[in-house]
Amino acid sequence: MLPSPIDLSEKLKQFTDQWSPKTIAEMDGFQFKLVKVQGDFVWHQHADTDEAFLVLAGELRIDFRSGSVVLKPGQMLVVPKGVEHKPFSEHECHLMLFEGAGTVNTGDAAANELTSDPTAEL
Amino acid sequence: MLPSPIDLSEKLKQFTDQWSPKTIAEMDGFQFKLVKVQGDFVWHQHADTDEAFLVLAGELRIDFRSGSVVLKPGQMLVVPKGVEHKPFSEHECHLMLFEGAGTVNTGDAAANELTSDPTAEL
Repeated sequence: MLPSPIDLSEKLKQFTDQWSPKTIAEMDGFQFKLVKVQGDFVWHQHADTDEAFLVLAGELRIDFRSGSVVLKPGQMLVVPKGVEHKPFSEHECHLMLFEGAGTVNTGDAAANELTSDPTAEL
Repeated sequence: MLPSPIDLSEKLKQFTDQWSPKTIAEMDGFQFKLVKVQGDFVWHQHADTDEAFLVLAGELRIDFRSGSVVLKPGQMLVVPKGVEHKPFSEHECHLMLFEGAGTVNTGDAAANELTSDPTAEL
């Protein structure tokens, strides 16, 4: 059985909801996810996994307690485990995430209206 | 200390050698690497790590013993550990790899002129 190519643009066309990461590939206990984001997220951290962000379209600001980093398309960043962060995007931004399998998007923050199903996949 | 944004295009400008992956980010024992490839690689497999390929520019064919998969820009694929594969690209192709830290590009194949330093980074 041949591994299947995964087309990021095609996958992005398959959903419109925001702040709801969808797993598109898995390896060695980690998952690649696509997500569309807009507006302000909540402060949170992931105790058990580093988290990589790669911007595919739009612009993402990630706020840290010590300052902010802005990512444009083709730019990525790794947020180490345990580091509080809060993503923000004025306009819709499309991202690929890479993080430990089953990671909940809102991390250690109390479950809220932004908390999405960590098992969602495309 | 803020995490730094990593610009894939800027990193790609920093080297010209082919078949020589450079680590650009690390997380949880895994590494993101950039590599430029052209021509035929060797058959090999990685016993200890799955390996993800994301095409950034050009076109990559990955041959498996059971057939071939072609990846265009914005397409990715995960090669499971232990699965023999051989990348090929007629023209130069730019890739991002994600694999276990320290993975040697030629895997289980005898070291040869295509084997590169697994500790190279940008």
